[in-house]
Amino acid sequence: MKQLVEVTEAIELLERTPGLLDTWLVGVSEPWLSAREGEGTWSPLEVVAHLAHNEETDWMPRLELVLQHGESQPFEPYEREGFRTRFPGWPLERLLPRFSAARRENLERLRELGLKPVDLNRTGMHPALGRVTVRQLIAGWVVHDLTHLAQIARVLAKRYGEAVGPWREYMGVLGDRPR
Amino acid sequence: MKQLVEVTEAIELLERTPGLLDTWLVGVSEPWLSAREGEGTWSPLEVVAHLAHNEETDWMPRLELVLQHGESQPFEPYEREGFRTRFPGWPLERLLPRFSAARRENLERLRELGLKPVDLNRTGMHPALGRVTVRQLIAGWVVHDLTHLAQIARVLAKRYGEAVGPWREYMGVLGDRPR
Repeated sequence: MKQLVEVTEAIELLERTPGLLDTWLVGVSEPWLSAREGEGTWSPLEVVAHLAHNEETDWMPRLELVLQHGESQPFEPYEREGFRTRFPGWPLERLLPRFSAARRENLERLRELGLKPVDLNRTGMHPALGRVTVRQLIAGWVVHDLTHLAQIARVLAKRYGEAVGPWREYMGVLGDRPR
Repeated sequence: MKQLVEVTEAIELLERTPGLLDTWLVGVSEPWLSAREGEGTWSPLEVVAHLAHNEETDWMPRLELVLQHGESQPFEPYEREGFRTRFPGWPLERLLPRFSAARRENLERLRELGLKPVDLNRTGMHPALGRVTVRQLIAGWVVHDLTHLAQIARVLAKRYGEAVGPWREYMGVLGDRPR
Protein backbone atom coordinates (compact mmCIF):
# COMPACT_ATOMS: atom_id res chain seq x y z
CA MET A 1 0.00 0.00 0.00
CA LYS A 2 1.33 3.40 -0.96
CA GLN A 3 1.84 5.50 2.17
CA LEU A 4 1.99 9.24 2.59
CA VAL A 5 5.48 10.63 3.13
CA GLU A 6 4.40 11.98 6.54
CA VAL A 7 3.50 8.43 7.52
CA THR A 8 6.58 6.69 6.15
CA GLU A 9 8.91 9.25 7.72
CA ALA A 10 7.23 8.86 11.08
CA ILE A 11 7.37 5.06 10.84
CA GLU A 12 11.10 5.20 10.04
CA LEU A 13 11.81 6.60 13.48
CA LEU A 14 9.00 4.92 15.42
CA GLU A 15 9.97 1.43 14.31
CA ARG A 16 13.56 1.90 15.46
CA THR A 17 12.92 2.96 19.06
CA PRO A 18 12.52 -0.46 20.70
CA GLY A 19 15.70 -1.81 19.08
CA LEU A 20 17.55 1.33 19.98
CA LEU A 21 16.57 0.99 23.64
CA ASP A 22 17.55 -2.65 23.57
CA THR A 23 21.03 -1.83 22.22
CA TRP A 24 21.44 1.05 24.62
CA LEU A 25 20.22 -0.34 27.92
CA VAL A 26 20.11 -4.14 28.06
CA GLY A 27 23.04 -5.42 30.12
CA VAL A 28 23.88 -2.02 31.55
CA SER A 29 24.39 -2.12 35.31
CA GLU A 30 21.76 -1.11 37.82
CA PRO A 31 23.15 2.30 38.88
CA TRP A 32 22.69 3.51 35.29
CA LEU A 33 19.19 2.09 34.93
CA SER A 34 17.97 3.57 38.20
CA ALA A 35 19.75 6.93 37.91
CA ARG A 36 17.51 9.94 38.50
CA GLU A 37 17.96 13.66 37.92
CA GLY A 38 15.88 14.77 40.89
CA GLU A 39 12.87 13.96 43.01
CA GLY A 40 9.74 13.03 41.08
CA THR A 41 11.70 12.44 37.87
CA TRP A 42 12.02 9.13 36.06
CA SER A 43 14.93 6.75 35.81
CA PRO A 44 15.81 5.24 32.40
CA LEU A 45 13.99 2.07 33.51
CA GLU A 46 10.86 4.08 34.33
CA VAL A 47 11.04 5.87 31.00
CA VAL A 48 10.95 2.49 29.24
CA ALA A 49 7.98 1.44 31.40
CA HIS A 50 6.22 4.67 30.48
CA LEU A 51 6.90 4.12 26.78
CA ALA A 52 5.43 0.60 27.00
CA HIS A 53 2.35 1.83 28.84
CA ASN A 54 1.97 4.76 26.51
CA GLU A 55 2.27 2.56 23.45
CA GLU A 56 -0.65 0.42 24.63
CA THR A 57 -2.96 3.27 25.57
CA ASP A 58 -2.10 6.55 23.90
CA TRP A 59 -1.24 7.44 20.32
CA MET A 60 -2.66 4.63 18.22
CA PRO A 61 -5.87 4.14 20.21
CA ARG A 62 -6.44 7.89 19.94
CA LEU A 63 -5.78 7.86 16.21
CA GLU A 64 -8.41 5.14 15.76
CA LEU A 65 -10.82 7.19 17.86
CA VAL A 66 -10.36 10.25 15.66
CA LEU A 67 -10.92 8.24 12.51
CA GLN A 68 -14.08 6.67 13.92
CA HIS A 69 -15.63 9.48 15.93
CA GLY A 70 -13.88 12.75 15.07
CA GLU A 71 -14.30 15.34 17.74
CA SER A 72 -17.48 13.84 19.15
CA GLN A 73 -15.62 11.49 21.46
CA PRO A 74 -12.79 13.17 23.35
CA PHE A 75 -9.67 11.14 24.20
CA GLU A 76 -9.39 9.46 27.58
CA PRO A 77 -7.02 11.54 29.72
CA TYR A 78 -3.60 9.92 29.77
CA GLU A 79 -2.39 8.59 33.10
CA ARG A 80 1.21 9.77 33.32
CA GLU A 81 2.17 7.39 36.12
CA GLY A 82 0.00 4.57 34.82
CA PHE A 83 3.00 2.36 34.15
CA ARG A 84 3.43 1.83 37.89
CA THR A 85 0.22 -0.18 38.24
CA ARG A 86 0.45 -1.82 34.83
CA PHE A 87 4.04 -3.03 35.18
CA PRO A 88 4.84 -3.04 38.92
CA GLY A 89 8.53 -3.78 39.42
CA TRP A 90 9.02 -5.18 35.93
CA PRO A 91 12.66 -5.44 34.86
CA LEU A 92 13.91 -4.07 31.56
CA GLU A 93 14.01 -7.56 30.09
CA ARG A 94 10.25 -7.82 30.46
CA LEU A 95 9.37 -4.23 29.59
CA LEU A 96 11.25 -4.03 26.34
CA PRO A 97 9.60 -6.98 24.55
CA ARG A 98 6.24 -5.65 25.72
CA PHE A 99 6.98 -2.21 24.26
CA SER A 100 8.42 -3.73 21.12
CA ALA A 101 5.36 -5.93 20.50
CA ALA A 102 2.90 -3.09 21.04
CA ARG A 103 4.90 -0.80 18.78
CA ARG A 104 5.05 -3.42 16.04
CA GLU A 105 1.30 -4.00 16.17
CA ASN A 106 0.56 -0.30 16.16
CA LEU A 107 2.77 0.36 13.16
CA GLU A 108 1.21 -2.55 11.28
CA ARG A 109 -2.18 -1.04 11.97
CA LEU A 110 -0.99 2.40 10.90
CA ARG A 111 0.25 0.97 7.61
CA GLU A 112 -3.01 -0.92 7.09
CA LEU A 113 -5.01 2.27 7.53
CA GLY A 114 -3.42 3.66 4.37
CA LEU A 115 -4.15 7.23 5.40
CA LYS A 116 -4.95 9.70 2.61
CA PRO A 117 -3.99 13.40 2.59
CA VAL A 118 -7.48 14.38 3.72
CA ASP A 119 -7.22 12.03 6.72
CA LEU A 120 -4.25 14.00 8.06
CA ASN A 121 -6.54 16.98 8.53
CA ARG A 122 -9.23 15.10 10.41
CA THR A 123 -9.66 16.32 13.95
CA GLY A 124 -10.17 14.87 17.39
CA MET A 125 -10.61 16.36 20.83
CA HIS A 126 -7.79 16.18 23.36
CA PRO A 127 -9.06 16.51 26.94
CA ALA A 128 -6.49 19.21 27.80
CA LEU A 129 -5.15 20.50 24.48
CA GLY A 130 -8.45 20.81 22.62
CA ARG A 131 -8.73 20.25 18.88
CA VAL A 132 -5.88 18.27 17.33
CA THR A 133 -5.36 16.88 13.85
CA VAL A 134 -4.21 13.43 12.77
CA ARG A 135 -1.09 15.09 11.33
CA GLN A 136 -0.28 16.57 14.72
CA LEU A 137 -0.97 13.29 16.46
CA ILE A 138 1.45 11.37 14.24
CA ALA A 139 4.13 14.03 14.66
CA GLY A 140 3.46 14.03 18.41
CA TRP A 141 3.97 10.28 18.58
CA VAL A 142 7.42 10.65 16.98
CA VAL A 143 8.48 13.61 19.10
CA HIS A 144 7.27 11.84 22.23
CA ASP A 145 9.76 9.03 21.55
CA LEU A 146 12.51 11.56 20.94
CA THR A 147 11.79 13.60 24.04
CA HIS A 148 12.16 10.44 26.11
CA LEU A 149 15.33 9.36 24.30
CA ALA A 150 16.81 12.77 25.07
CA GLN A 151 15.63 12.29 28.65
CA ILE A 152 17.47 8.98 28.99
CA ALA A 153 20.68 10.52 27.64
CA ARG A 154 20.29 13.45 30.02
CA VAL A 155 19.59 11.32 33.09
CA LEU A 156 22.54 9.02 32.38
CA ALA A 157 24.79 12.03 31.79
CA LYS A 158 23.79 13.77 35.00
CA ARG A 159 24.94 10.76 36.99
CA TYR A 160 28.44 11.94 36.01
CA GLY A 161 27.61 15.64 36.29
CA GLU A 162 30.07 16.16 39.12
CA ALA A 163 32.56 13.56 37.96
CA VAL A 164 33.39 15.42 34.73
CA GLY A 165 34.86 18.33 36.69
CA PRO A 166 35.90 21.26 34.48
CA TRP A 167 34.57 19.50 31.35
CA ARG A 168 31.13 20.38 32.60
CA GLU A 169 31.03 23.60 30.61
CA TYR A 170 31.41 21.71 27.31
CA MET A 171 28.62 19.26 28.11
CA GLY A 172 25.42 21.01 27.20
CA VAL A 173 23.18 18.12 28.21
CA LEU A 174 24.13 18.65 31.86
CA GLY A 175 22.45 22.05 31.77
CA ASP A 176 19.16 20.83 30.29
CA ARG A 177 16.33 21.00 32.76
CA PRO A 178 14.92 17.93 34.51
CA ARG A 179 11.44 16.87 33.46
CA MET B 1 42.13 -8.20 34.33
CA LYS B 2 40.14 -6.82 37.23
CA GLN B 3 38.89 -3.34 36.36
CA LEU B 4 37.83 -0.48 38.59
CA VAL B 5 34.10 0.07 38.82
CA GLU B 6 34.54 3.57 37.38
CA VAL B 7 36.13 1.99 34.32
CA THR B 8 33.65 -0.87 33.85
CA GLU B 9 30.66 1.46 34.23
CA ALA B 10 32.10 3.86 31.68
CA ILE B 11 32.84 1.03 29.26
CA GLU B 12 29.26 -0.26 29.58
CA LEU B 13 27.94 2.90 27.98
CA LEU B 14 30.87 3.69 25.68
CA GLU B 15 30.82 0.28 24.02
CA ARG B 16 27.12 0.60 23.17
CA THR B 17 27.18 3.94 21.36
CA PRO B 18 28.21 2.77 17.87
CA GLY B 19 25.57 0.01 17.81
CA LEU B 20 22.96 2.39 19.14
CA LEU B 21 23.67 4.88 16.36
CA ASP B 22 23.55 2.07 13.83
CA THR B 23 20.12 0.93 15.05
CA TRP B 24 18.85 4.49 15.22
CA LEU B 25 20.05 6.03 12.00
CA VAL B 26 21.01 3.53 9.31
CA GLY B 27 18.27 3.40 6.68
CA VAL B 28 16.53 6.54 7.89
CA SER B 29 15.72 8.91 5.05
CA GLU B 30 17.82 11.92 4.16
CA PRO B 31 15.60 14.69 5.60
CA TRP B 32 16.09 13.20 9.07
CA LEU B 33 19.85 12.76 8.67
CA SER B 34 20.40 16.29 7.41
CA ALA B 35 17.94 18.02 9.78
CA ARG B 36 19.38 21.02 11.60
CA GLU B 37 18.13 23.11 14.52
CA GLY B 38 19.65 26.37 13.31
CA GLU B 39 22.55 27.95 11.49
CA GLY B 40 25.97 26.69 12.54
CA THR B 41 24.49 23.65 14.28
CA TRP B 42 25.11 20.04 13.32
CA SER B 43 22.84 17.54 11.62
CA PRO B 44 22.65 13.97 12.97
CA LEU B 45 25.04 12.95 10.17
CA GLU B 46 27.53 15.63 11.23
CA VAL B 47 27.25 14.55 14.85
CA VAL B 48 28.27 11.02 13.83
CA ALA B 49 31.18 12.43 11.81
CA HIS B 50 32.24 14.45 14.86
CA LEU B 51 32.06 11.37 17.09
CA ALA B 52 34.25 9.42 14.66
CA HIS B 53 36.79 12.23 14.45
CA ASN B 54 36.69 12.76 18.17
CA GLU B 55 37.22 9.08 18.87
CA GLU B 56 40.41 9.06 16.82
CA THR B 57 41.91 12.21 18.29
CA ASP B 58 40.50 13.15 21.66
CA TRP B 59 39.79 11.10 24.80
CA MET B 60 41.99 8.04 24.52
CA PRO B 61 45.04 9.80 23.05
CA ARG B 62 44.74 12.34 25.86
CA LEU B 63 44.47 9.62 28.48
CA GLU B 64 47.68 8.04 27.18
CA LEU B 65 49.34 11.44 27.28
CA VAL B 66 48.41 11.96 30.94
CA LEU B 67 49.70 8.53 31.89
CA GLN B 68 52.99 9.13 30.08
CA HIS B 69 53.67 12.80 30.69
CA GLY B 70 51.32 14.07 33.39
CA GLU B 71 50.88 17.81 33.25
CA SER B 72 54.18 18.44 31.51
CA GLN B 73 52.72 17.97 28.03
CA PRO B 74 49.39 19.78 27.56
CA PHE B 75 46.77 18.23 25.28
CA GLU B 76 46.57 19.32 21.66
CA PRO B 77 43.61 21.68 21.30
CA TYR B 78 40.67 19.81 19.83
CA GLU B 79 39.48 20.91 16.40
CA ARG B 80 35.70 21.07 16.70
CA GLU B 81 35.05 21.10 12.97
CA GLY B 82 37.92 18.74 12.21
CA PHE B 83 35.57 16.08 10.90
CA ARG B 84 34.93 18.18 7.78
CA THR B 85 38.46 17.74 6.47
CA ARG B 86 38.92 14.21 7.78
CA PHE B 87 35.68 12.78 6.38
CA PRO B 88 34.57 15.16 3.61
CA GLY B 89 31.13 14.16 2.36
CA TRP B 90 31.26 10.70 3.91
CA PRO B 91 27.90 8.95 4.18
CA LEU B 92 26.67 7.38 7.39
CA GLU B 93 27.50 3.92 6.07
CA ARG B 94 31.19 4.84 5.96
CA LEU B 95 31.30 6.95 9.12
CA LEU B 96 29.72 4.43 11.46
CA PRO B 97 32.16 1.55 10.89
CA ARG B 98 35.00 4.04 11.26
CA PHE B 99 33.64 5.24 14.59
CA SER B 100 32.88 1.72 15.69
CA ALA B 101 36.41 0.45 14.92
CA ALA B 102 38.09 3.36 16.69
CA ARG B 103 35.84 2.95 19.72
CA ARG B 104 36.55 -0.78 19.90
CA GLU B 105 40.31 -0.22 19.75
CA ASN B 106 40.18 2.49 22.36
CA LEU B 107 38.18 0.40 24.79
CA GLU B 108 40.51 -2.56 24.29
CA ARG B 109 43.39 -0.27 25.14
CA LEU B 110 41.55 1.12 28.16
CA ARG B 111 40.98 -2.40 29.46
CA GLU B 112 44.64 -3.33 28.84
CA LEU B 113 45.79 -0.35 30.88
CA GLY B 114 44.23 -1.91 33.99
CA LEU B 115 44.00 1.43 35.75
CA LYS B 116 44.46 1.43 39.52
CA PRO B 117 42.70 3.77 41.97
CA VAL B 118 45.75 6.02 42.13
CA ASP B 119 45.77 6.37 38.35
CA LEU B 120 42.32 7.99 38.44
CA ASN B 121 43.83 10.90 40.34
CA ARG B 122 46.71 11.48 37.93
CA THR B 123 46.51 14.86 36.25
CA GLY B 124 47.03 16.29 32.81
CA MET B 125 46.81 19.78 31.37
CA HIS B 126 43.88 20.75 29.16
CA PRO B 127 44.71 23.71 26.89
CA ALA B 128 41.53 25.59 27.89
CA LEU B 129 40.23 23.92 31.05
CA GLY B 130 43.53 23.61 32.93
CA ARG B 131 44.28 20.72 35.27
CA VAL B 132 42.10 17.65 34.77
CA THR B 133 42.23 14.19 36.31
CA VAL B 134 42.00 10.79 34.64
CA ARG B 135 38.73 10.25 36.53
CA GLN B 136 37.30 13.43 35.00
CA LEU B 137 38.55 12.48 31.56
CA ILE B 138 36.85 9.08 31.65
CA ALA B 139 33.59 10.62 32.89
CA GLY B 140 33.90 13.32 30.23
CA TRP B 141 34.25 10.72 27.51
CA VAL B 142 30.96 9.10 28.60
CA VAL B 143 29.07 12.37 29.00
CA HIS B 144 30.38 13.55 25.63
CA ASP B 145 28.65 10.57 23.97
CA LEU B 146 25.46 11.30 25.88
CA THR B 147 25.42 15.00 25.10
CA HIS B 148 25.59 14.12 21.41
CA LEU B 149 22.91 11.42 21.69
CA ALA B 150 20.64 13.97 23.33
CA GLN B 151 21.56 16.36 20.52
CA ILE B 152 20.50 13.88 17.83
CA ALA B 153 17.15 13.29 19.58
CA ARG B 154 16.64 17.05 19.90
CA VAL B 155 17.54 17.82 16.27
CA LEU B 156 15.26 15.08 14.95
CA ALA B 157 12.44 16.25 17.23
CA LYS B 158 12.74 19.88 16.18
CA ARG B 159 12.12 18.89 12.58
CA TYR B 160 8.54 18.25 13.78
CA GLY B 161 8.49 21.18 16.18
CA GLU B 162 5.72 22.92 14.25
CA ALA B 163 3.99 19.76 13.10
CA VAL B 164 3.07 18.66 16.62
CA GLY B 165 0.80 21.69 17.06
CA PRO B 166 -0.64 21.98 20.57
CA TRP B 167 1.31 18.92 21.76
CA ARG B 168 4.37 21.18 21.76
CA GLU B 169 3.89 22.07 25.41
CA TYR B 170 4.26 18.43 26.48
CA MET B 171 7.44 17.89 24.48
CA GLY B 172 10.25 19.21 26.62
CA VAL B 173 12.96 18.41 24.13
CA LEU B 174 11.59 21.04 21.75
CA GLY B 175 12.46 23.73 24.28
CA ASP B 176 16.06 22.61 24.82
CA ARG B 177 18.53 25.06 23.38
CA PRO B 178 20.42 24.44 20.16
CA ARG B 179 24.16 23.78 20.49
